[in-house]
Amino acid sequence: MEIVMIGTGNVASVLGRKFKAAGHHILQVAGRNSSEASALAYEWNTVSTNYLSAINGTADVYIIAISDDAIASVAEQLRLPGRVIAHTAASVPAGVLKNVSKHYGVFYPLQSLRKEMADLPEIPVFFTGSDERTDNLLANLARSISGKHAVHAGDDVRMRLHVAAVFASNFTNHLYALAEDYCNKEGLEFKELFPLIEETANRIKTISPQNAQTGPAIRHDDATIKKHLELLSGHPHLKKIYEVLTESIRQMK
Amino acid sequence: MEIVMIGTGNVASVLGRKFKAAGHHILQVAGRNSSEASALAYEWNTVSTNYLSAINGTADVYIIAISDDAIASVAEQLRLPGRVIAHTAASVPAGVLKNVSKHYGVFYPLQSLRKEMADLPEIPVFFTGSDERTDNLLANLARSISGKHAVHAGDDVRMRLHVAAVFASNFTNHLYALAEDYCNKEGLEFKELFPLIEETANRIKTISPQNAQTGPAIRHDDATIKKHLELLSGHPHLKKIYEVLTESIRQMK
Repeated sequence: MEIVMIGTGNVASVLGRKFKAAGHHILQVAGRNSSEASALAYEWNTVSTNYLSAINGTADVYIIAISDDAIASVAEQLRLPGRVIAHTAASVPAGVLKNVSKHYGVFYPLQSLRKEMADLPEIPVFFTGSDERTDNLLANLARSISGKHAVHAGDDVRMRLHVAAVFASNFTNHLYALAEDYCNKEGLEFKELFPLIEETANRIKTISPQNAQTGPAIRHDDATIKKHLELLSGHPHLKKIYEVLTESIRQMK
Repeated sequence: MEIVMIGTGNVASVLGRKFKAAGHHILQVAGRNSSEASALAYEWNTVSTNYLSAINGTADVYIIAISDDAIASVAEQLRLPGRVIAHTAASVPAGVLKNVSKHYGVFYPLQSLRKEMADLPEIPVFFTGSDERTDNLLANLARSISGKHAVHAGDDVRMRLHVAAVFASNFTNHLYALAEDYCNKEGLEFKELFPLIEETANRIKTISPQNAQTGPAIRHDDATIKKHLELLSGHPHLKKIYEVLTESIRQMK
């Protein structure tokens, strides 16, 4: 397919590379930041523009990969009648694009994407379109980069998936960050926890996390919990999180 | 080395396999549970006993891999003068073994171990001994199964590492469990989150989690946070955790 990418951030950068790797042609990349747009255009062997008014009107599909709160204002300035257009945001309804074209939708990558990634990760894509043509085109585009992890999902499902993703990724990363912070303050090597973190994450593929729970909270090891809270007495913030999550594990049982 | 394994649970099972894989000989396995002890003895091509009084007194090292609160009572019943003995517990001081032998210590595997594991994971080992002979022997044993991830660490450091491990593993697993629970209740496929979870865990090897934080909390995306809290209105427990961790991410910045 011929694709116009609107946006130059993390999602645009990685999706663009995935599209290229799948054999699509990126006709143009549009972004406010000239140097980022030029860099992506160079990487993708295409052209860039800083003006929405200069967007090529002949592409098969337009992907808007910009921050959530910028989508509405970009949509106001875009008119691409007859073209298929989709944004990549979890929490913005598809309808925000309805005045750009009647063929609008969402192309949501359920993955944490960063420009700097050396390897392209697996990216499940949840798509929805305003009509059959849009649905089919976005389905084909999604399948081309994620195979069977291309799933049709409306606004409601997508937003709920995002809630689950916040728990499974944003919040877990925060716990890694808290552990790292504690290690730094206590003179411990955070990297010694890497094998444990890897094992904990990999295990869920073979055993439900609800059945894989280990640690002092699930085995009601009050002596260890008490010791840990003492060790955290100089870290009131960590202590509070420890108490909340320990209680949460106990309630789950 | 010739090793006697005391205990038949997850830690004993996986450490024993690591010892075997490193070329050590397990002289005997001792455990209260006859069928588990027999099964491990069969797996390791050795003998088992259910009696502490029947433990072979000629091994190079005795590993006590049993639950924290059972260690003191086993120690009371064991006398192995002149032998090196170590337990595997993070939060139990080495000194609990001081009446068993003057060569006592700790051999703590910083990993989440389960009998059912198909593959043996990397296991950093933190060891400490009551004297040079014990230190050296435990160092050699640790290096034989974990190479450079064999680290000398006293009770204080080990207990602090365990606190960090609770955040990085037990609590993250609980977040996976909460996400899974939410998916099940909302009719979503938890497994669609696997690539995201994997990426989040793998990324910490190349970028500090404090710098890798993404999501609505870190970018102060109040509109999305508000939507998520509305979506969680039927899940008061998840809502509370969402609020606490969102606030925690904001404070970390």
